[in-house]
Amino acid sequence: MILGKVIGTVVSTRKCSNLVGYKLLTIRPLFGNKENIFVAADLLGAGIGECVLITTDNTTQYALNKSSPIDALVVGIVDSEPQIENV
Amino acid sequence: MILGKVIGTVVSTRKCSNLVGYKLLTIRPLFGNKENIFVAADLLGAGIGECVLITTDNTTQYALNKSSPIDALVVGIVDSEPQIENV
Amino acid sequence: MILGKVIGTVVSTRKCSNLVGYKLLTIRPLFGNKENIFVAADLLGAGIGECVLITTDNTTQYALNKSSPIDALVVGIVDSEPQIENV
Amino acid sequence: MILGKVIGTVVSTRKCSNLVGYKLLTIRPLFGNKENIFVAADLLGAGIGECVLITTDNTTQYALNKSSPIDALVVGIVDSEPQIENV
Amino acid sequence: MILGKVIGTVVSTRKCSNLVGYKLLTIRPLFGNKENIFVAADLLGAGIGECVLITTDNTTQYALNKSSPIDALVVGIVDSEPQIENV
Repeated sequence: MILGKVIGTVVSTRKCSNLVGYKLLTIRPLFGNKENIFVAADLLGAGIGECVLITTDNTTQYALNKSSPIDALVVGIVDSEPQIENV
Repeated sequence: MILGKVIGTVVSTRKCSNLVGYKLLTIRPLFGNKENIFVAADLLGAGIGECVLITTDNTTQYALNKSSPIDALVVGIVDSEPQIENV
Repeated sequence: MILGKVIGTVVSTRKCSNLVGYKLLTIRPLFGNKENIFVAADLLGAGIGECVLITTDNTTQYALNKSSPIDALVVGIVDSEPQIENV
Repeated sequence: MILGKVIGTVVSTRKCSNLVGYKLLTIRPLFGNKENIFVAADLLGAGIGECVLITTDNTTQYALNKSSPIDALVVGIVDSEPQIENV
Repeated sequence: MILGKVIGTVVSTRKCSNLVGYKLLTIRPLFGNKENIFVAADLLGAGIGECVLITTDNTTQYALNKSSPIDALVVGIVDSEPQIENV
């Protein structure tokens, strides 16, 4: 899964019917290339600035009540930014 | 999901039968490496220059009426380019 | 989907039984890092030098008659290299 | 699969119900861009500093008792860091 | 699919039960960033130094007798390194 920071929201009036009801968040990756901003759906209520855990691809479906064309989903809100130990 | 800008269309006369009926759009990513242009199928009627939301891989299938060999699909037309807050 | 140019073929005598019958093409991506050459299976008869449209991952299966361990498949032969408009 | 080193853990109190029970590890890739730290779920009891083998995407599900929104899973603890032969 | 060269093996005593029986090979990509070494399972008996064809993600499952948490699998041993034509 990917760790990222919520940096904004996306508004889309014309969209697939089974995307309705999801909050769409812009996410900046916490590690790697921070320019690779992407969009994740959210049902947990993550707010701007929070650090979240995101699962991708088809595994998103296992956290949804019905199938939806979503390839990135917030599956956890992280309590505190992880401490990276030098090992 | 990926945010991208529609920059053109692809015409393919010889193609898989279950790709017929989809508009094929060339997409420039809004974030990250803008040279990584790719092709997404579209059923929402996105036009050149519009900013769109794209889902990838097998999750595209959940927005289609029947299975199709499509690994990138426009699932939303974005109202305005997202404001990235510096958090 | 990815746009690429057919630059060669791959011959493999010892291979999985359900790969038999597919032509295996080496593909150079049209956009992004052109060094990332990969292999796609083909049932459409694409020739060396042609520009093709390729779908990836599990979505390849929706264009096949039976399941096969193929993660990249030519799903269209492009009529002419796409014109990228500066938008 | 990816080889990586366990460098920390992630704590998430608010998370999807079917993520409960998994240890969440931060992983530094052994090869490639070592900055691309990601999170993998673990059921094998890998400890900080150990070298692990990780599978990704939907294939994680084949090692789980029930479906879970996990796109990276520790599937092996490596006995010793692999010797890369110059071939 | 990816072309790669077998450069070593991975030994893991503590692993998922449905990984038992597969040889685990370290693979160096033939094209692109050669530092992105990864691990593929093998049932074809590929040896060190051989050039192999690898499928990824969920499509690996179509070459297996039973589902296994494997996201990269050797599906062919290449007769000779492919000739890349300058087209």
